Amino acid sequence: MSQAVLDAADATMSRLLRLAQKFNCFYLSGFTSGECKPFIVEGFQVGLVRPDVMKQLLRYPEVFCVSSGSVELNPAFRDYEERSNKINEVLKELRSENTFIALKGWRDECYEVRTEFNAASLLRLDRSATCLFGIRNYGVDINGYVKHPTMGLCLWLQQRSATKQTWPGKWDNMVGGGLSVGHGILETAHKEAMEEASIPSDLMQNLISAGCVSFYFESERGLFPNTEFVFDLELPLDFVPKNQDGEVQQFELLPVGQCLERIFLSDYKTTSIPVTLDFLIRHGLVSPENEPYYTRIIELLHVPLQKIYSNAKTTVHKQNGQSIIENNVAS
Amino acid sequence: MSQAVLDAADATMSRLLRLAQKFNCFYLSGFTSGECKPFIVEGFQVGLVRPDVMKQLLRYPEVFCVSSGSVELNPAFRDYEERSNKINEVLKELRSENTFIALKGWRDECYEVRTEFNAASLLRLDRSATCLFGIRNYGVDINGYVKHPTMGLCLWLQQRSATKQTWPGKWDNMVGGGLSVGHGILETAHKEAMEEASIPSDLMQNLISAGCVSFYFESERGLFPNTEFVFDLELPLDFVPKNQDGEVQQFELLPVGQCLERIFLSDYKTTSIPVTLDFLIRHGLVSPENEPYYTRIIELLHVPLQKIYSNAKTTVHKQNGQSIIENNVAS
Repeated sequence: MSQAVLDAADATMSRLLRLAQKFNCFYLSGFTSGECKPFIVEGFQVGLVRPDVMKQLLRYPEVFCVSSGSVELNPAFRDYEERSNKINEVLKELRSENTFIALKGWRDECYEVRTEFNAASLLRLDRSATCLFGIRNYGVDINGYVKHPTMGLCLWLQQRSATKQTWPGKWDNMVGGGLSVGHGILETAHKEAMEEASIPSDLMQNLISAGCVSFYFESERGLFPNTEFVFDLELPLDFVPKNQDGEVQQFELLPVGQCLERIFLSDYKTTSIPVTLDFLIRHGLVSPENEPYYTRIIELLHVPLQKIYSNAKTTVHKQNGQSIIENNVAS
Repeated sequence: MSQAVLDAADATMSRLLRLAQKFNCFYLSGFTSGECKPFIVEGFQVGLVRPDVMKQLLRYPEVFCVSSGSVELNPAFRDYEERSNKINEVLKELRSENTFIALKGWRDECYEVRTEFNAASLLRLDRSATCLFGIRNYGVDINGYVKHPTMGLCLWLQQRSATKQTWPGKWDNMVGGGLSVGHGILETAHKEAMEEASIPSDLMQNLISAGCVSFYFESERGLFPNTEFVFDLELPLDFVPKNQDGEVQQFELLPVGQCLERIFLSDYKTTSIPVTLDFLIRHGLVSPENEPYYTRIIELLHVPLQKIYSNAKTTVHKQNGQSIIENNVAS
């Protein structure tokens, strides 16, 4: 297609489609560029490594085998503990050298590394480091909403504390948190609802699971193949969220029409937009009548992350007229 | 992976994941088998043609150019009308010969053929014939629900008339219909709600757009890359749907727990399961707490149909370590 045609297409592209492409910037460009190498653990691809990270990992040949086709965690490591400890030692050294911005957000809180969400974990990794390896990560988000007699459907949003390691001062969904080692999905929802917004357990009885969103974002910190488990919570008119853990600056109740405007602002956390947008779609504010790229946007809220890292052995197959040569990533 | 490992994986696979694979049977196997050829109109891929259909199209070289890489509608046809008429003449002949089961369901009702949902239409095609060319098609579905004081959340289901051309006698969502030439999404929702279930316009005020589902099914009739625009409609306790157009045998109000069982029965229309399942997910009945393959199932309710037919010119690019050679499908 000519540049003129592409420019014309871009001009007619909706603001929401641009936003959906922004939180999927890696899915739509980096992923297909071929610059990153598969990260292999126990014969399975569990992530992707960018060239800047690869360069540092080359310094630890006893931990990472960097070849032309992949970065592999030393397969001689015997088990979950040994794999976790060996990689942790490297990360601690890189952190002390200030090599990566990502590691400045070290949390002493780990995420599991799995081939699939419900598979056994291969190792754990500090959550600040998962983006260096493109590890799929999972979180929980609660859309707190109110059916207001005059303002109509409203959403509670939070503004993150100015001192947070990531996305300081940005607007965000009412309650959200990562799924860390040893914590279940509902457990995390209840824990975060209490810590971030002081939602009493009787109100949490109304919590309704409403799906999940998946997208693949990239920032200067690294790669973010994120899946968020989404919950809706109707709150009474007189309830006001109060923060307990110091991670929230303020809460604001906004009519959904204003939420739809706010997600376009630069002070909205990019990786929280999918959850807000999914809520606005499920509750009819964004509809096929007012959004020309409705179907594409909904597909970009559900990109196929669970199957994005292929575990197949070397095969050449035909797909829709394309020849696909797969790497031998399984050992 | 060894066969034993695959068998073990299959044994632990949830019933819902199997169902999601069933309504995506073409997406998960046929699509990657390479047996079908791209269907090209005006230089754009708009569908896929199976070998059994290709064999018949070879008889009409003045309409279809069948090459080793594609089936192309004669690019000499000047416009929408000429393309529509030429292909219609072929279909009428094939129909009179009883060549394809699909054409026994001839409707005298056309679908548009586009490169993308909101693009200009390239031609129209009788809706019974779209599956012969793997044309993306779009429909509208309404989940009619009731908050019952004793049964809890309930869904109205319809049983299709025993004389319907497709899926006779099968259970289905309360209201649904295809998006045919000249009709908008909301317009179709209102029209079908009246014809199929006699829902008065004052009740339709509560209609809420709730997203869409996309899946790629295959049957003996042909290929079905379907996107359904989904609406929820809360109905009052005392409302009972009544059919007007003779296409419905009966309606039944079922608690959502029983709906979840019914979609597993062989008398549930396979291509209606995604809409019902999406409702059950959005309303918390299927949750990450009770469904181990929750994230994969949600991805299978939103497969990337809008981008599944590539329109790129010949390029070789690297994707996640794979070399992809694309056909030159654009003329």
